[in-house]
Amino acid sequence: MTTRIIAVDVHDVRFPTAADADGSDAINRGDYSATYVELRTEAGPTGAGLTFTNGRGNELTVGAVKALAHHVEGRTVEEIFAEPVTFWRSLTADPQLRWLGPEKGVIHMAAGAVVNAVWDLRARLADRPLWQLLAEMSADELVAAVDFRHIGDAITPAEAHAILSEGEKGLDERLELLRTEGFPAYTTSVGWLGYPDDKVRALTRQAVAEGWRAVKMKVGGPIEDDVRRAAIIREEIGPDALLMMDANQVWDVDEAVSNMERLAPYDPYWIEEPTHADDVLGHARVARAVAPVRVATGEVAANRVIFKQLLQASAIGVCQVDACRVGGVNEVLSILLMAAKFGVPVCPHAGGVGLCEYVQHLAIFDYLRVGRSLDGRMIEYVDHLHEHFTDPVRVENGRYHLPEQPGYSVAMRPESVARFGFPDGPAWR
Amino acid sequence: MTTRIIAVDVHDVRFPTAADADGSDAINRGDYSATYVELRTEAGPTGAGLTFTNGRGNELTVGAVKALAHHVEGRTVEEIFAEPVTFWRSLTADPQLRWLGPEKGVIHMAAGAVVNAVWDLRARLADRPLWQLLAEMSADELVAAVDFRHIGDAITPAEAHAILSEGEKGLDERLELLRTEGFPAYTTSVGWLGYPDDKVRALTRQAVAEGWRAVKMKVGGPIEDDVRRAAIIREEIGPDALLMMDANQVWDVDEAVSNMERLAPYDPYWIEEPTHADDVLGHARVARAVAPVRVATGEVAANRVIFKQLLQASAIGVCQVDACRVGGVNEVLSILLMAAKFGVPVCPHAGGVGLCEYVQHLAIFDYLRVGRSLDGRMIEYVDHLHEHFTDPVRVENGRYHLPEQPGYSVAMRPESVARFGFPDGPAWR
Repeated sequence: MTTRIIAVDVHDVRFPTAADADGSDAINRGDYSATYVELRTEAGPTGAGLTFTNGRGNELTVGAVKALAHHVEGRTVEEIFAEPVTFWRSLTADPQLRWLGPEKGVIHMAAGAVVNAVWDLRARLADRPLWQLLAEMSADELVAAVDFRHIGDAITPAEAHAILSEGEKGLDERLELLRTEGFPAYTTSVGWLGYPDDKVRALTRQAVAEGWRAVKMKVGGPIEDDVRRAAIIREEIGPDALLMMDANQVWDVDEAVSNMERLAPYDPYWIEEPTHADDVLGHARVARAVAPVRVATGEVAANRVIFKQLLQASAIGVCQVDACRVGGVNEVLSILLMAAKFGVPVCPHAGGVGLCEYVQHLAIFDYLRVGRSLDGRMIEYVDHLHEHFTDPVRVENGRYHLPEQPGYSVAMRPESVARFGFPDGPAWR
Repeated sequence: MTTRIIAVDVHDVRFPTAADADGSDAINRGDYSATYVELRTEAGPTGAGLTFTNGRGNELTVGAVKALAHHVEGRTVEEIFAEPVTFWRSLTADPQLRWLGPEKGVIHMAAGAVVNAVWDLRARLADRPLWQLLAEMSADELVAAVDFRHIGDAITPAEAHAILSEGEKGLDERLELLRTEGFPAYTTSVGWLGYPDDKVRALTRQAVAEGWRAVKMKVGGPIEDDVRRAAIIREEIGPDALLMMDANQVWDVDEAVSNMERLAPYDPYWIEEPTHADDVLGHARVARAVAPVRVATGEVAANRVIFKQLLQASAIGVCQVDACRVGGVNEVLSILLMAAKFGVPVCPHAGGVGLCEYVQHLAIFDYLRVGRSLDGRMIEYVDHLHEHFTDPVRVENGRYHLPEQPGYSVAMRPESVARFGFPDGPAWR
């Protein structure tokens, strides 16, 4: 029995979030949106994937999915997973479309949505949540899913195999711990740049009451404002809770170093995106200057080659891989493996639309099979837009529960897709 | 008198080049295409810009231009150039669209097409070719056109100003030399990967007869084939002519080093794109290993932050900036200035559709005002598709003549736009 993909449906779904400054930071402000992909099969289940965008321009990732669809339509899930790197390259190294990236931006995000939909479909066929499907795969099969081209100088297939084999040991105990305690999380909902001080204080107080012991604030506005807000949040969370800061790339390298001197009194745990996402050498300089504060980045790190360099250059102390910025599960696997080899904890980027739903699977698999430690590991949590998913995340007392339904958890409710469809859905008319 | 832009017209133009392997290399094979932008003004001239793509997916850069058009429509050229960085950021740091790059791929290439069209319009209004407009601008005005955000650790406005002021000295002599002798060029038409050996030999012999003293071959196929073709070309051009090699990113870092050992007997002048375009550290390693052979890259270096790092890390010995991969003239200025500061010659990437037409202006301006030397400087030349432009390059005896018509030279013939319009033009029906 094989499952053939007969059509790729793609939806432009946008939520009008710009008006109330939810999700606003030093450089982005928009209507949280999704390029939502459904792989239709003849008799079987539908595979769901998405990429997150910030509103205008979502039609471009929609268009890019359409441009890639012919690589998927008519193929069977079994064929695809018999030669996973060949399939992955058909999307990411298409001899005409590659020029548009290469392996970055619109075309790569679209490839990621398609790749993730294929993995979702496979997990549904196996009747398992994605994290479980991955955790039960053999080291051979996982290694075969990774494209080592252009990262061979950082990790070899043999090294990856050794990490994954080692990860089989003690897996049951780690799983039991997650079932009992959940996966640690932190919240970003307290300190968006658009929020006034009293709202920041009230939200922080509420977060502490809800059990959060790690919170993140946005910085990158006028430094005096950042300092004042940091003081408010630190005052509310007390000295022992973790305070992360996120500059969303707005600073120059030297500016990042001097601003972090100003913010140091509030004991930041990490500084996220201190400067331009492409600046590996700049991140390395900031990392040396702000230690022991960690540098974190990844949400717009375009691909495995950028992550490879961030790790090689000791530029990051926290790896914030995103589920849909890079080319889907296959490329995320390569990044988790490199992070493990270089000893850097993975704390995936989330928020947006469906990112929490996605990345919980990655963090759980990483703990079970790759990184094998919870030390310094947290999944970002933002309490936005979960109601639009059929299998939303469940977060309590600052911890994610294990997802239990089959798949990759980003299937959207048909009524949400219809209502927020752009530009013709009732929410936009 | 002001000139108001009243509409942005964008055309999907594709040339069916895939069939005969012109332009094929280790990683790209397609139908050379252009996202062609025209800025309409009420009474004045039209501004023309384009970005080059490889066929399928050209509709995405077309769509991205449409998404950016509202930043230009209704504005005057005078307003735009009164605050050039504000204008540039309106395109490249749009708070919703930036997420789709940031500053890379589809959205950035589209921004470059629009920015270049604005510069073309300004040059037409000034009745000057773009190189001349730039060469005559004051250091103050040129510096004001550059966004120093995220490159302040490599070059300051004051350093840029000093380079440009110094460049005013001896400018007339340099211009006279170019008028007399033209600008040095090299040809890439001899050794595309798809060509059989006898065609490579015949084309090389013909190139030597036409006066070329510098030729480029594609490598990155099976290494035995590359070695055999290198031997043929070296035999034909003799020991003194320059032979450049271009791997189009297909190699891993270690592979690049070992393959260049195999190719060293044929005395390569540079190795271009030895590995993944994003791999700054990888290029630096290759550069150390293959010296004195130079490492060259740039045609898919996404933005000034990547160029900054390539220069900081001594990863390149030749800077191959492209006119339309990065965000147009403004960003190219920052790259030329950084290259000058780091002492690396600029040899722009060309070929494709309209790239030769574009980059001749950049190389000429660089010589006149920034780099101020012809040592190691050459403009790539590929003899494809020039007949579709109203002011095509003129290349003789291996040298570019100075363009004389006003503008940036990428205005296309209306009949070409109509005939090769995709998908409805007669060439595609």
